[in-house]
Amino acid sequence: MDKNYLLPSAAAKRLYEKVRLLPIADYHCHLSPKEIYDDVPFDNIGEMWLGGDHYKWRLMRAAGVDEKYITGNASWHDKFIKYAEAVTFAAGSPLYAWSHMELSQFFGVEDILSVENAETIWEKANTVIREKQLSPRKLIEMSNVEYIATTDDPIDSLEYHRLIADDSSFSVKVAPAFRTDRLMLIRAADYPQYIEMLSSASGVKINSVSSLSEAISHRLDYFCSLGCRFSDVGIQYFPDRISDMAEADSTFKKAISGNEISDSEFMGFLGYMYILLASEYKKRGIVMQLHLMVRRNANTELFRSVGADAGGDCIGDTISCRDLTYILDAINSASGMPETILYTLEPSVSAKLVSIAGSFPNVRCGAAWWFCDHKRGIEEQILNIAECGHLGTFLGMLTDSRSFLSYARHDYFRRILCGLLGSFVESGEYPDEALAGKLAEKICIGNIRKLIEKGESR
Amino acid sequence: MDKNYLLPSAAAKRLYEKVRLLPIADYHCHLSPKEIYDDVPFDNIGEMWLGGDHYKWRLMRAAGVDEKYITGNASWHDKFIKYAEAVTFAAGSPLYAWSHMELSQFFGVEDILSVENAETIWEKANTVIREKQLSPRKLIEMSNVEYIATTDDPIDSLEYHRLIADDSSFSVKVAPAFRTDRLMLIRAADYPQYIEMLSSASGVKINSVSSLSEAISHRLDYFCSLGCRFSDVGIQYFPDRISDMAEADSTFKKAISGNEISDSEFMGFLGYMYILLASEYKKRGIVMQLHLMVRRNANTELFRSVGADAGGDCIGDTISCRDLTYILDAINSASGMPETILYTLEPSVSAKLVSIAGSFPNVRCGAAWWFCDHKRGIEEQILNIAECGHLGTFLGMLTDSRSFLSYARHDYFRRILCGLLGSFVESGEYPDEALAGKLAEKICIGNIRKLIEKGESR
Amino acid sequence: MDKNYLLPSAAAKRLYEKVRLLPIADYHCHLSPKEIYDDVPFDNIGEMWLGGDHYKWRLMRAAGVDEKYITGNASWHDKFIKYAEAVTFAAGSPLYAWSHMELSQFFGVEDILSVENAETIWEKANTVIREKQLSPRKLIEMSNVEYIATTDDPIDSLEYHRLIADDSSFSVKVAPAFRTDRLMLIRAADYPQYIEMLSSASGVKINSVSSLSEAISHRLDYFCSLGCRFSDVGIQYFPDRISDMAEADSTFKKAISGNEISDSEFMGFLGYMYILLASEYKKRGIVMQLHLMVRRNANTELFRSVGADAGGDCIGDTISCRDLTYILDAINSASGMPETILYTLEPSVSAKLVSIAGSFPNVRCGAAWWFCDHKRGIEEQILNIAECGHLGTFLGMLTDSRSFLSYARHDYFRRILCGLLGSFVESGEYPDEALAGKLAEKICIGNIRKLIEKGESR
Repeated sequence: MDKNYLLPSAAAKRLYEKVRLLPIADYHCHLSPKEIYDDVPFDNIGEMWLGGDHYKWRLMRAAGVDEKYITGNASWHDKFIKYAEAVTFAAGSPLYAWSHMELSQFFGVEDILSVENAETIWEKANTVIREKQLSPRKLIEMSNVEYIATTDDPIDSLEYHRLIADDSSFSVKVAPAFRTDRLMLIRAADYPQYIEMLSSASGVKINSVSSLSEAISHRLDYFCSLGCRFSDVGIQYFPDRISDMAEADSTFKKAISGNEISDSEFMGFLGYMYILLASEYKKRGIVMQLHLMVRRNANTELFRSVGADAGGDCIGDTISCRDLTYILDAINSASGMPETILYTLEPSVSAKLVSIAGSFPNVRCGAAWWFCDHKRGIEEQILNIAECGHLGTFLGMLTDSRSFLSYARHDYFRRILCGLLGSFVESGEYPDEALAGKLAEKICIGNIRKLIEKGESR
Repeated sequence: MDKNYLLPSAAAKRLYEKVRLLPIADYHCHLSPKEIYDDVPFDNIGEMWLGGDHYKWRLMRAAGVDEKYITGNASWHDKFIKYAEAVTFAAGSPLYAWSHMELSQFFGVEDILSVENAETIWEKANTVIREKQLSPRKLIEMSNVEYIATTDDPIDSLEYHRLIADDSSFSVKVAPAFRTDRLMLIRAADYPQYIEMLSSASGVKINSVSSLSEAISHRLDYFCSLGCRFSDVGIQYFPDRISDMAEADSTFKKAISGNEISDSEFMGFLGYMYILLASEYKKRGIVMQLHLMVRRNANTELFRSVGADAGGDCIGDTISCRDLTYILDAINSASGMPETILYTLEPSVSAKLVSIAGSFPNVRCGAAWWFCDHKRGIEEQILNIAECGHLGTFLGMLTDSRSFLSYARHDYFRRILCGLLGSFVESGEYPDEALAGKLAEKICIGNIRKLIEKGESR
Repeated sequence: MDKNYLLPSAAAKRLYEKVRLLPIADYHCHLSPKEIYDDVPFDNIGEMWLGGDHYKWRLMRAAGVDEKYITGNASWHDKFIKYAEAVTFAAGSPLYAWSHMELSQFFGVEDILSVENAETIWEKANTVIREKQLSPRKLIEMSNVEYIATTDDPIDSLEYHRLIADDSSFSVKVAPAFRTDRLMLIRAADYPQYIEMLSSASGVKINSVSSLSEAISHRLDYFCSLGCRFSDVGIQYFPDRISDMAEADSTFKKAISGNEISDSEFMGFLGYMYILLASEYKKRGIVMQLHLMVRRNANTELFRSVGADAGGDCIGDTISCRDLTYILDAINSASGMPETILYTLEPSVSAKLVSIAGSFPNVRCGAAWWFCDHKRGIEEQILNIAECGHLGTFLGMLTDSRSFLSYARHDYFRRILCGLLGSFVESGEYPDEALAGKLAEKICIGNIRKLIEKGESR
C-alpha cells in the first residue's frame, strides 16, 4: 500500500506522522496466551491467514469458493491460492486492505495480490517467514504492542498468563480479561458441568446464586492478581427484566439440575447477572465491555459441520432502548456504574447507543466492531461519537482478532482517524492542527493507557 | 445531462467508457409482455411518463399538485406541465436525474426541464415520438437490452411470452418470472377464486396442500418451458414460524372454504410455502428473489379512490434477524439453498442483510430497491456489499419498472458504479484500474449473464 | 469561524450570499415569553451558556467533568472554564461549531476556545455583554428573527404573549404553540390536578372526554386568538390502537379519579387523543408537529437529583411503520389530514419516515432534531427529503432551543444547505444555479413564511 494510503490531505499526512509509531494497547482480542508463550515460528502464510480467520472464510464463500478450500482438507498452498482468487475482485472489502497491509508490513510484499501473482507471493511470503523466523512474539514486537488483554473464561487457569509474566525475555504485558458468556448461558446443555468446573477452579462449592456469587468473586480476585483490567460479554441475548435474588436462585438451581428454563426465567437470570457482575467490576475498577446485537451460528448446517466461529454469525437484532436503558439504569442505581464500553454489531443503531451512553456516567461507546470494522464503518463510528458523545475520550482501536498479523488494523485505523481529523483541520471544522495532533495521540494510545494504568481515563 | 455526469474522476470516466455500451439484462421488471408484443407506438410524453408511474405521482403530491393532475381526468398535456412544475425544485430526487436522462437518451432533449420550458419540451418530445415512431420494442432496442424477466402470476397463460418467442423480428429474450404474492396471501377475499383459477391453469384439482404443491410444480415446469429463470415475492408479511404439513393443510382448507385464518396460521402457512417453493426452485435452478420490508397501501383513502400501486406504499417494518435467519436456515437444511437474492426497502437494514446473506450458501443481496434507488442509496448498497459481502459477485442493476423509458436507470447505475470504482482506483483502495474495469463489466452484465445462462454466477 | 466555513465550493459561497441575511422564522423553540417580555440583560457568558443547556451538560459529563461544575453549585466562571476544557477536544461536535459561531456572531470573539484562553474569552465576552447590554430582545434582533413560536401548555395563560403583542417597541411576532404532552400523559401522578387546572383555564367543568374535548376547543380558540399556528407533542409513547369514545371516556374517568390505567387503555387513549386533536387542528389550520422516538429521563439518579431536561434523555425506540401509518391513516380518514410535520430522533429511521410522509397528504418531515442536529445529520436529513420526498417544500431550520444565542444554528444550517446545493450545482446534479438560489430561499424562509401566513405552503 502506498505511503499515503487513506491520507487524502496534507494535514492528514502530518497528523499520521505523529501517531504512526505510537505503541499499541490491544485491550480486546482473542489471541491465545499459550501461542504467545510457546512462540512457535509459523510455517506458511496459508496457515497464518486461513487457519482460523472466519472473515476470510466468509469472503471465499461469497466468492463461490468450494468449502474444501475454506475449512476442508485442501493444502495450505491451495487454500492460499483460492483466497487470492477471492481477493482479486474484493474491492471495498476491509480484507482487501488488511491483506495488502499485512503483506507489506510483515512480509515486505508491495504487489497487488491477484490470481496472477498468487504463486509468487506465496513463495516470497514463506521465504520471509523462514528467514525472519516469524513467530507470535516476533509479530507482536514488530507491531510495537505494549499491552494485550486476551479473552478468558472464568474457569481458565491463566497458566500461560503466569508463565508469560514470569518470562523476562518478553516485556509485553499480557493480561487476562473476564469473559462471562458461558457463565450466563444458563440454558446450555453443558451448564451443570461448567458450574462443576467453576466450583473446582474457585474452590467454592456452588449450589446457589449466593455461592455462585462467591465463586465469581474468587475468580475475579484471581484474574486481578494477574493484571485483569477488562471484562467482556458477547452473547446474543439481552435481558428485558431482572430477577430478584430468590427467583435467580430458583432458576440457577433448575439450571444446574438440568431442568428446563423458561424464556422469562432466562431473561430474569441474565438481568440478575448483569447487576451482580457490574457491582463486582465496580468494586475492582474492572472495565465492563458489552458486545451487543450479534446473532451466532445462524447456519445450522455450517455449525454442525465446522462448529462455532466458522463464519455463520451475523448482525443480530436491535436491542431496544427500553431494555438497554433499563439494565444500565439498574446497574447505576444498584452499585454505581463501572467504566463501561458498549459495542454494537448493528451499525444503524450506533447513534442511538452513543446517545444512551451519554445519559449515564462512565459509559462510552467503543470502536466499530467486526462487520463494522472497515473504512466507512470506522469513520461513521468516530463521527457518531464526535457528534453525540465526546471524541476526546474515545478509546480508539482494538483488534478483536485471533491472528497475530491483525495488528496491521491499528495502522488502518490510525490512517482513517488522521484522514478524518485532517479533513476537520482543512475545512476549518476543527482548525487547530496542534490540538488535532494531541487528540489523535489521545485516541491512539493516551486514553486507553490512562484507563489501564490508573483505572480511569477521564 | 453532461457527458461526464456523475463521473467525478478521470478513472471514473475511463471505467465508464468500458461499460457504457454493454448490453442490459433486466432480470426483474414489471413491463407488460402484451405491450411488448403489440408494440403500439406511443402518443405523447405525458402518457409515457405519467400513465402509471407512482414515483412521479408521489413527487407531484409532495409538491402540492392537485390529484386531478396526478391520477385524475386532466389531459396528458396538463399533467405533463404540472409534473414539470414539481420537478423544477426537486433537487436531489432520482426523478430529477431520471427525467433528464430519459429526455436526453430517448428524445434528444438536453435542456433542464422547468415551468418555463415545459411547453416547448412537450412539443419537442412529442415530435420525436411521432417521427421515430417510439414504441415499446423501439425503446428496448435503443437501450441495447438482451434479456427481460417480467413479473407473472402462476396462473398467467404466458401467451404473450410465447408469441414474442415465436416472433423472429424481435431478438430480445423475454422470459417470465414466477411471482407468488397472490399464492401466499391466503387471507385475501378472493383467495378461493384464485385457487380455482390455479386449478384450471394447472389442470390439477386443488383441495389440499399436496395438490397445491402438485399444481405449483406443473406451473413451474410450464414457466421453465418458456425460459423462466427467476421467481419473486414482494408481500408485506414475513413468517416467524413454519407450519408442518398437517397444519398447513388445515389452514389451506380453511382458506379455500373462505374461513378465517388466525395470525399464527397465516404466519405458519407462509413459512410452509417458503420451504416448499424454495425446494421447487432449487430442483429447477430457479433464482429466488425476496423483496422485503415493504408496507403496501398505507393510505386507505388513496387505495379506495385510485387502487393499488398508486403511491400509497412505503418502507415497511424491519424483519428481525431471528425470523429471516430462521427461514433461510430451514430452507438450507430442508432442500439446500437455491440461488437467492435479498432486497430490502429499508436502507438502514442493508448491512445486516448482507451479513445474513453471507452466513448461507447461494444467498446474496441485490441492488438498491425502489425508495433506495437513488445516487446515495446505490452507492451505499454497493459499499455494504463490498464491505461485508463480495463485490465481485454483485449482480448489478435491474429496473423494477413499469416504463420502457426506465432503461435510462442502467446508465444512471453504471455512472454511479464507475464513479465509486474510480474513486477506489484514485485513492489507492483498489489501485489496479484494469481489474476495476473487469469488475465493472462483471457487475454490469457478466455476473447476471452467467447466472441466467448457466444457472450459476460464482 | 472563517467566512467560508462549511462552504467548500464557489457555488456554495454564492448561494450562501443569497440567503445569509434573510430573516428567521423560528417555528419551534423553547424560549420563555416571560424572558422575552422582561428583557433583562444577561450577566455573564457562563450563565448564558450553562444555565439550562443540557447539550452542553452532556458534553461536560462525557468529558469527565465533575457534576459540581455542570449542574452543581460552582460559580458561573468556574463552570465556563470547565466547559472550555470539555470543548477543547470536542472535534466534530455540533457544540464545537455552535460555541464558536456564537462567540463570533454575538461577542465578536474569533479565537478558538480552549483551556489556554478560557479566562481571556470569559473576560472579553462579559465585557461585550455589559457594553452592548445583551438581552433576550437584543439577541433576537441581532439575529434578524421575524417570527417565534414558543412551546406552551394548554393551561398556560399566555399572559406574556399578550404583553409582547401589545408592546409596540418590539416588532417580532411571538406566537404560542399548543404543546399537548401533559394533556396526553394520563398516567402522570398529577394528572387529576392538571385537569383541574385545565378546567379553570378553559372555564369548562371537565369530567368526561366530551367535556375534555370542549375544553381543548376553548383553549385552541384562545391560542388562535393570539396567533397560534403550530401544535406539538413530544412524548416517548406512541399508540398502537385507538379507543372508541366510550373506552376513552372510561379511561379518562379512571385517570382523573387517580385509578390505575392499563398499558392497553393508555395506548387506546393516546390514539383517541391523536384523532381528536388532529381534527381540531384541521378545523383551525393549525400545523401538527410530532416529535417522535425519544426516551426521556433514562437515568433515574440524574432525574432524582437534577430533574427533567437534565441530559438524561436519549434516542428512543423505533415506532413501527405499522403503528405510525395506522394513526396517520385514521386521522386522514376521520377528519382529513392537517398540515403535519414529523420529526425523528432516531436518524436511521429518517428515510422510512419520509416514505411514510409521502403516502399521506399534507405530511412532511421536518429538520434534523436534537441529537441529529449536526452537520452530517442535517445533510442526511436534507438528502432523505430530497431523495424520497420533495426538497422544494422543505420547511428548513428551527432552533428547538432554550437559549437566545441559538439563532447561530440558522447560520450553521444555511451554510450546510448551501454547501450541499452548491455541490449539486457543481456536479451537474442540479445544474441551474439560479434555481438553486431560489430553492435555498424557499427553504430558508419562503416555505415557512407561506405556511405561517397563508396556512399552507404548497
